[in-house]
Amino acid sequence: MRLYLALIHFPVVNRRGEIIASAITNLDLHDMARSARTFNVAACYVVTPLRDQRELAGDLIRHWCEGEGFKLHPERGSALKHLRIVESLDAAREDIRRESGVPPVMWATSARERTGGLSHSLARLALKETDGPFLVLFGTAWGLAESVLDEADAILEPVRGVDGYNHLSVRCAAAIILDRLLGVDQAE
Amino acid sequence: MRLYLALIHFPVVNRRGEIIASAITNLDLHDMARSARTFNVAACYVVTPLRDQRELAGDLIRHWCEGEGFKLHPERGSALKHLRIVESLDAAREDIRRESGVPPVMWATSARERTGGLSHSLARLALKETDGPFLVLFGTAWGLAESVLDEADAILEPVRGVDGYNHLSVRCAAAIILDRLLGVDQAE
Repeated sequence: MRLYLALIHFPVVNRRGEIIASAITNLDLHDMARSARTFNVAACYVVTPLRDQRELAGDLIRHWCEGEGFKLHPERGSALKHLRIVESLDAAREDIRRESGVPPVMWATSARERTGGLSHSLARLALKETDGPFLVLFGTAWGLAESVLDEADAILEPVRGVDGYNHLSVRCAAAIILDRLLGVDQAE
Repeated sequence: MRLYLALIHFPVVNRRGEIIASAITNLDLHDMARSARTFNVAACYVVTPLRDQRELAGDLIRHWCEGEGFKLHPERGSALKHLRIVESLDAAREDIRRESGVPPVMWATSARERTGGLSHSLARLALKETDGPFLVLFGTAWGLAESVLDEADAILEPVRGVDGYNHLSVRCAAAIILDRLLGVDQAE
């Protein structure tokens, strides 16, 4: 099993449902990288079409993987080296195809209830039984645009809170989903 | 079952193992509140002896629960109202004792492997079978001071990554642990 993540900054929606490109958040990159490293994910793509945002993210990664940050906290570099900055989801898929020989099975995530979602336990089984590669998409802002959800091979069921509340941060939702898909302490 | 959390800023250790008071991080408060709201936690105490930090956190909570923030994103208020700012762990325990009639069973968390840790599945069972109250402690910076670990009734097992990596953010570790203790999609 080979699993990749993508943290999508475009196309995502704002709270009015409009398509936007969201800004990269420093802590998102750190948290996604640390979670990816924890659960042995092959890489986490950081997707944004905005060139200055990609440069900013690149500077951040170099600081922690090669620069002063690496000297101070080498364990941060071991996490942040899992990040790959790309301009589009297509670029991420092409990179995986190049690396794995075949394009990835793509699973989107969404906080919204909908019919036909892929349960986390079934997804866990699929990861265990097949080689992949798999690519799990996480949307920033108010979530992935419908066009991305339509493109995905499946949409994972949401992490359900009590009484319909579904406003986890993308950092925490991704951590929980990774744990459900790959965590080692859970009952099989 | 009645479960409380505490995000501890003192006493915690820095990367050299020295006791420090860490600074409150805006995103920690948002993420802990959103996770607490998701999993129906009674409250999350934010513990710091630094008066100006408590005032800052109080301003933040009022912004989202009563002020402009509440008008813009009411769902943030519904999360952040779960936060209670206190000056010490003793104050949190006393507050729970006042509210519940009895002091809480206290579980500490730690990223470090040690013998005798309480497994997440046993902890989940305890929460299901007993009334509590329970208080789960999360340390900021490099984790809870030994004195806090010594005071706890049990130390929860760490969230284990591959090959010994154990550097999840406290936000993500707390989300995963809450999901393991209380999440509704897991096999029982």
